[in-house]
Amino acid sequence: MTFITEDFLLKSEFAKTLYHDYAADLPIIDYHNHLPPKEIAENRVFENITQVWLAGDHYKWRAMRALGIDEKYITGNASDKEKFLKWAETTPYTVRNPLYHWTHLELKGYFGIDELLSAENAEVIYETTSEKLQEESFSTQGLLLQKNVEYLCTTDDPTDTLMYHQQITADKVNSRVFPTFRPDKAYAVDNPTQYLSFLESLAAVSQLEINSYDDLIVALENRVDYFHEKGCRLADHGLEQLYAVDKDAISCAVVFQKLKSKKLLSPKEKQVFVSTTLLLLCRMYHKRGWVQQFHLGSIRNNNTRLLNTLGPDSGFDSIGDFSQANALSWFLNQLDHTDELSKTILYNLNPSQNEVFASMAGNFNDGSTRGKVQYGSAWWFLDQKDGIEKQINTLSNIGLLSCFVGMLTDSRSFLSFPRHEYFRRILCNLIGNDVVSGELPADEKWLGKIVSDICYNNSKSYFGL
Amino acid sequence: MTFITEDFLLKSEFAKTLYHDYAADLPIIDYHNHLPPKEIAENRVFENITQVWLAGDHYKWRAMRALGIDEKYITGNASDKEKFLKWAETTPYTVRNPLYHWTHLELKGYFGIDELLSAENAEVIYETTSEKLQEESFSTQGLLLQKNVEYLCTTDDPTDTLMYHQQITADKVNSRVFPTFRPDKAYAVDNPTQYLSFLESLAAVSQLEINSYDDLIVALENRVDYFHEKGCRLADHGLEQLYAVDKDAISCAVVFQKLKSKKLLSPKEKQVFVSTTLLLLCRMYHKRGWVQQFHLGSIRNNNTRLLNTLGPDSGFDSIGDFSQANALSWFLNQLDHTDELSKTILYNLNPSQNEVFASMAGNFNDGSTRGKVQYGSAWWFLDQKDGIEKQINTLSNIGLLSCFVGMLTDSRSFLSFPRHEYFRRILCNLIGNDVVSGELPADEKWLGKIVSDICYNNSKSYFGL
Amino acid sequence: MTFITEDFLLKSEFAKTLYHDYAADLPIIDYHNHLPPKEIAENRVFENITQVWLAGDHYKWRAMRALGIDEKYITGNASDKEKFLKWAETTPYTVRNPLYHWTHLELKGYFGIDELLSAENAEVIYETTSEKLQEESFSTQGLLLQKNVEYLCTTDDPTDTLMYHQQITADKVNSRVFPTFRPDKAYAVDNPTQYLSFLESLAAVSQLEINSYDDLIVALENRVDYFHEKGCRLADHGLEQLYAVDKDAISCAVVFQKLKSKKLLSPKEKQVFVSTTLLLLCRMYHKRGWVQQFHLGSIRNNNTRLLNTLGPDSGFDSIGDFSQANALSWFLNQLDHTDELSKTILYNLNPSQNEVFASMAGNFNDGSTRGKVQYGSAWWFLDQKDGIEKQINTLSNIGLLSCFVGMLTDSRSFLSFPRHEYFRRILCNLIGNDVVSGELPADEKWLGKIVSDICYNNSKSYFGL
Repeated sequence: MTFITEDFLLKSEFAKTLYHDYAADLPIIDYHNHLPPKEIAENRVFENITQVWLAGDHYKWRAMRALGIDEKYITGNASDKEKFLKWAETTPYTVRNPLYHWTHLELKGYFGIDELLSAENAEVIYETTSEKLQEESFSTQGLLLQKNVEYLCTTDDPTDTLMYHQQITADKVNSRVFPTFRPDKAYAVDNPTQYLSFLESLAAVSQLEINSYDDLIVALENRVDYFHEKGCRLADHGLEQLYAVDKDAISCAVVFQKLKSKKLLSPKEKQVFVSTTLLLLCRMYHKRGWVQQFHLGSIRNNNTRLLNTLGPDSGFDSIGDFSQANALSWFLNQLDHTDELSKTILYNLNPSQNEVFASMAGNFNDGSTRGKVQYGSAWWFLDQKDGIEKQINTLSNIGLLSCFVGMLTDSRSFLSFPRHEYFRRILCNLIGNDVVSGELPADEKWLGKIVSDICYNNSKSYFGL
Repeated sequence: MTFITEDFLLKSEFAKTLYHDYAADLPIIDYHNHLPPKEIAENRVFENITQVWLAGDHYKWRAMRALGIDEKYITGNASDKEKFLKWAETTPYTVRNPLYHWTHLELKGYFGIDELLSAENAEVIYETTSEKLQEESFSTQGLLLQKNVEYLCTTDDPTDTLMYHQQITADKVNSRVFPTFRPDKAYAVDNPTQYLSFLESLAAVSQLEINSYDDLIVALENRVDYFHEKGCRLADHGLEQLYAVDKDAISCAVVFQKLKSKKLLSPKEKQVFVSTTLLLLCRMYHKRGWVQQFHLGSIRNNNTRLLNTLGPDSGFDSIGDFSQANALSWFLNQLDHTDELSKTILYNLNPSQNEVFASMAGNFNDGSTRGKVQYGSAWWFLDQKDGIEKQINTLSNIGLLSCFVGMLTDSRSFLSFPRHEYFRRILCNLIGNDVVSGELPADEKWLGKIVSDICYNNSKSYFGL
Repeated sequence: MTFITEDFLLKSEFAKTLYHDYAADLPIIDYHNHLPPKEIAENRVFENITQVWLAGDHYKWRAMRALGIDEKYITGNASDKEKFLKWAETTPYTVRNPLYHWTHLELKGYFGIDELLSAENAEVIYETTSEKLQEESFSTQGLLLQKNVEYLCTTDDPTDTLMYHQQITADKVNSRVFPTFRPDKAYAVDNPTQYLSFLESLAAVSQLEINSYDDLIVALENRVDYFHEKGCRLADHGLEQLYAVDKDAISCAVVFQKLKSKKLLSPKEKQVFVSTTLLLLCRMYHKRGWVQQFHLGSIRNNNTRLLNTLGPDSGFDSIGDFSQANALSWFLNQLDHTDELSKTILYNLNPSQNEVFASMAGNFNDGSTRGKVQYGSAWWFLDQKDGIEKQINTLSNIGLLSCFVGMLTDSRSFLSFPRHEYFRRILCNLIGNDVVSGELPADEKWLGKIVSDICYNNSKSYFGL
């Protein structure tokens, strides 16, 4: 019995046509992910499926912990094989979670495995996948090629030398790999000691002294230039929320000196520092024609005990319920007021704010660019069928779905590209449903065009890579 | 190929019966909209479809801007025809947005046009509709008659003379047109200069001196009386949120003098002033047996640059994420405590608060009036199939759908009345689905009665027009 | 015409199989409700259906008030029969509200009545049900036996003597009935006078003097021990929200003395007192291996006028929109930090926070216990098909549905146990839909196991009763 059939998730004939004829074969532009450029540059070959599939995948880790599996088998010192067996044992318990679909899409899509993973077939699958992984088409570059990944944008610290990006370009790797400027550390001021260490790295890589706030901004612009030179055209920012502040109330120059002397900032000082720095960065992007992204709404590191043992990004983050609308409005308006608002993608993690974000995006579409301010794809905890459908439906209701730049993996694993397939199937299915129910006319050519635009053409032209 | 068929949106036989036999032919009571009474009184004839369809329609404007269309063709100095051509070009890109359905419902419902609007047929449709618009049945009064609009409540400033309403009544226009008292300017204190200019108008129209807060209240009650005399039985209020305040902490008399001397108010002063004034107004309504409406949750004028160029209500408003529950509870309780709470309709713009509003309404139903406190229809950004379904479902789950006063257009265009048809189809379809799936018994007569009540009878008796 | 058929809510053959073969016959573990132990112990027989069905049912009361029925027939001095006739008259107007389903499920499930309740058959149904209620199987114990209620956890104040629980145990009543420790009054500090009266009762029942905060804690632990001895293994807490506080900023010892002298607390003082007391209680539970529950998000007693007439829990509560995430994170982290976090169930009343709660639960699953932190069942206003489906879907998407401890009635009526049937049908239907649409493999045995686990096995092992 095949689970992932050719028509998986496609409930109507119209949806099948849309998917197979207009979406399935398009190349992938994965404009936001966390893949390590080093592993692409070095064309890493994985010893076994645990290395490429479980290492770093905090989605799977959370599921295993919920099931009561000991940390030893998750991030601990069990062998790669033991870890895989535990994951295989967990898989049947993930029914209705996106992991269940992802798991079987990925086993089928890369390894041609058509069985449901479980404790029973775990050993065999461990062996066969490990064997396959030694083939040329299963190196990192091979895996990208398998899925026809045309462009790929990694996520990089301002202090990164981009040495691996340059190597990838020099090697003419099939997939074109670009860096994304993600300066989160430049305004991560909760911990002054860590902040000073960031300043040191920034000074070193930019070969500039950083003794004042102005120096900081100069150094950041230096890195923006450097990234631009290496082909970067996107910036990204992850934070709980933006802040609407009275910028003149507090001097960033003074706050900077406070940080330098390792003093904790007041909430107000932090907010002004974050806002001001972000606004200055956004103006740099605008000057260079970049696209800027904002990932808003998470609460990170909720579990101190396990943060101390396992470090960040280990599966202890969750969804916040901050008010976002007023500050978002203020922030975008600051930039728009002087016509310095770049093309912008807003991602939110709390789906109850879908409508807030979708309608906010519309306030700053001024007719100058098609789809200038985007309400971004369902993200992280929302990256599942329900979440994707809700994002698509909200965007459809409140904005123009037709201008949407579509899907990205946001992943740390080279096996995650079937998420584009997943998204494309869901999109085609939704449109197919509308046709079946008479809510859209059965205009295959036009709806096929809309689908192709969302899956490929829109992002191709939007990002200007 | 017909898109808007007779059974558009009706997915079951039961739904078709409900719609065609119990809903379709009922008159329309449009108890809240922004139609200009002057154009009704003067029975305006539109030169072309742009004038009646695109002028003032910020829904369409936002869509066009998102698609990257230059402002010239939206609110600028392009010709009416050029503007229509641009809208026609935009229409196919609005698939899945309510504009796509509205557009084709309106083209069919008024003009009998059964084609999908696009760049190709734009010229022809521009000509044929412009011609039709010269016919008698396409004047403003004709358009109302076409759609069997029995009652219509406009939205009017306290300083309005209601001269056009009087003319409409005197002329015995087929549709009965009533004013709605919307005193937003009486507590719009963010800009003292604008506030003083409102006070001047109010003083002039009421022929009263306004030198104190007490004078203000007297003048407002004077206008309430005047509106009442002219047939007004509804009030409406639009604001971001209500405020729970300690009314005794701050004197409105003092705040009023501060405003008179053009000083900016503190947030606390503003909140007390808004709350107190609203409470006093609400007591006036209660004395006269009016229905009061509250439209809560928008953030207006997010885009300063385009506000400065294009003015308010040009498509730069969006959905807020204010906490509403506590203040709403406090405010309604203030009135209920002395049994001075009028029949009340609460509209919210953020659908994540649907359940908050629906359950809050229930707290103040005291058995004295059927459906006394209403959780109002899906509004503005939510006025689409998904939003309407969510409002109906939330109301069903948490309150009594059977007592619902149903739909209103909230529109500025004389071509928007098919939104009642849209709502009726959606309502009948939802109930039909429930019958098909066995969640409701197939009791056509009873469910037909419920449908007729929601579409017409409930509002007929609720508003006492 | 039968409304509640054998396959009510089951839309696919797969769902029917799941329900009838894997769910329907399982015993019920109702681990949270508000049934009066006295009535179980005394095996109360009800004179008529009003007594067992309408008394105390504020869901029905709210519906009747919304329909404009006079309070006399709701909580007033009308006869039991008159009250029933008014409810019967109301029922047809509750279409699409859960009351409509509950009503007919209960009439059929207990009394075999297959008609739709209305004014017409009200008299007959009143007579036949009142007659039935005199049969042995319709006493409180009989009603529990009819529905195969294996375990039942009531909700009890720390000052309760648990005398009826002991009698129930001594009498070897078929359903095992356990108390739940619900110490809400121990941190209900808004009204010092009421608080002091609680302290008096607590002192009396624990036979301890309570002159200081430390005394309070000792007395509470004394009651925890007492409850534990009587078989209690669950605690429950109802409050608007948790608070993240700086515990060291304010001394609970001092706050306690302020309460003793009947002074109102500042918001900060209240928050520290509530937080600190809750944390201390939670540590007591952890020591004893209890499960702790938190019901968050309601706003109670919104209507002062009717609170004064009718008292609390009369149908004037609603859904709050408090921010919950940060405080919830802080609170759970406080306990987890020292590994003192018990098995925990988090219930939220605002469905827009479903994802916040589901993802928060995941942060504290550390692999030590299967399903350690649970995102609890849809509650109160959300206890209907839509709400249940949303809770199941959110849990599925963000956590592991397979580890869910499932349904509870939360009810005050002995006729509410069909809510378990309702839940089971909805659950089976959702999974059946997924199979039909190819989103889950048609593995009857596995999915049947998952269903049985959620409906019975998981809670059986989770609560350790």
